[in-house]
Amino acid sequence: MIILKIGGSILTKKDSAKAEVDFDNLNRIAKEIKDSLYSNNEGSNPNDSNNDSNTNSNSNLSDGLIIVHGAGSFGHPPAKKHKIGQPFKDEEYLTKRIGFCEIQNEVKRLNSIICEVFVKNEIPAIALPPSSFITTSNKRVHDFNLDLIKSYLNEGFIPVLYGDVVLDNEIKMAVISGDQIIQYIAKSIDSDRVVLGTDVDGVYTKNPKTQDDAVHIDVVSSIDDIKSLESTTNVDVTGGMVGKVKELLELADLGIESEIINANEPGVIFKALQGMDVPGTKISKN
Amino acid sequence: MIILKIGGSILTKKDSAKAEVDFDNLNRIAKEIKDSLYSNNEGSNPNDSNNDSNTNSNSNLSDGLIIVHGAGSFGHPPAKKHKIGQPFKDEEYLTKRIGFCEIQNEVKRLNSIICEVFVKNEIPAIALPPSSFITTSNKRVHDFNLDLIKSYLNEGFIPVLYGDVVLDNEIKMAVISGDQIIQYIAKSIDSDRVVLGTDVDGVYTKNPKTQDDAVHIDVVSSIDDIKSLESTTNVDVTGGMVGKVKELLELADLGIESEIINANEPGVIFKALQGMDVPGTKISKN
Repeated sequence: MIILKIGGSILTKKDSAKAEVDFDNLNRIAKEIKDSLYSNNEGSNPNDSNNDSNTNSNSNLSDGLIIVHGAGSFGHPPAKKHKIGQPFKDEEYLTKRIGFCEIQNEVKRLNSIICEVFVKNEIPAIALPPSSFITTSNKRVHDFNLDLIKSYLNEGFIPVLYGDVVLDNEIKMAVISGDQIIQYIAKSIDSDRVVLGTDVDGVYTKNPKTQDDAVHIDVVSSIDDIKSLESTTNVDVTGGMVGKVKELLELADLGIESEIINANEPGVIFKALQGMDVPGTKISKN
Repeated sequence: MIILKIGGSILTKKDSAKAEVDFDNLNRIAKEIKDSLYSNNEGSNPNDSNNDSNTNSNSNLSDGLIIVHGAGSFGHPPAKKHKIGQPFKDEEYLTKRIGFCEIQNEVKRLNSIICEVFVKNEIPAIALPPSSFITTSNKRVHDFNLDLIKSYLNEGFIPVLYGDVVLDNEIKMAVISGDQIIQYIAKSIDSDRVVLGTDVDGVYTKNPKTQDDAVHIDVVSSIDDIKSLESTTNVDVTGGMVGKVKELLELADLGIESEIINANEPGVIFKALQGMDVPGTKISKN
């Protein structure tokens, strides 16, 4: 089974003043996923257990695919505005609650647009909003019902989750990042590979977009490897690149390898889903 | 605790060729719910347990509110087109799966529009899509995780559910109606009242919109009372008025009274939420 994370910086215009989808990237990536699903399997879905024999054995897609996307410009600005995840006074509870609902609705709106494009590309994408089955305890997963994800996978669907707001049993309300979600799913459901599509070719010693002497890191196998890491890409409320690597190192500890790739480059997601080598950074203990 | 169902025939233009929201009704009803929530409780939310003493004791709103809406023109036409809930052949599975995803996304899109208007009216509406936590067994609820609904209620949110598509452990995929959802919640969570906002003044012996000799039924206390009932309003894939009454009679058997009212009439939902008498049909054993 493959878990594919697609960053909010890919699917939305993160620098835009208002929430805006990057339809060029979304349409292209939907087509790459579709091509990957149907590449060796004309007219039928490789998630379908009846068709195992026809699927590309390199891709591991025959065992299923889960897609997780970030919240981008739909989630980060309102989450920052309403300071979800920070302590608040009792008298602020009503305003906070309305803010929580506003964010939930905005990220759901992004998810609907993404799923609509996926479904038009014959990807059997089924939305599972984290706010409806996940809770956290001080910002880390507390309760995460995996049963329905497994059921949808068994029936050949492709569950689509995303960065969302959730109830937290300590701080009342929290933001859960797509990165924490993929980490939790990968360690809980038997996963072959975890692929993170970002807006850079993986992890660098410095921000490669602004620093000429940024050096690419091919493999991260310990937190020490990223000690010197400055913010390599957009710093956001869900932790940026350092946050991603920390989540993925937890997986590496369990023997699950992951890779951070550049989803802005046409063809890279298709190749990664097909099990081909693509430029990027591997997070691995080996 | 009050459960308010708002019919798809109220919130959408059901006769429209394409999915279309009835914004006149949606905006008006959102305002009626808002007025009801804040009527005796300026600036704070009566769902908030800290403010119990300030709330209108007639309304039972101080114990919480759950809203369930129908799918209307967003859900019924695609559900009919894809014949979800009917037997299908193995080779139709891929097409069926894509149809299921299409419907899920369409009803979610309606729900997003509704929640956006609710939140703009300071209703702390939190969407809980049935497809992400309910499964059925031959079209009846099999698994329905109520924990998160209770948690959101405890934190002063107003959960918003809706007619949706769900996985079915016998027929693979099914439609779950808003009416079945309210029945299940009402009998599982301690409910004071169940209010169904439809497009007629309750139950009639015949369709009051087309038959001059239709007689209004004030109270339904047994299935015998509706034996002669013809289709009194829009017949739809979720069972129409007879289906509604059957679900509600199951509640009446448990001592939970419900009422079917006309949500097209301005002020009726506000009054019903305030515990005032409004024209309609009561479903009750008494």
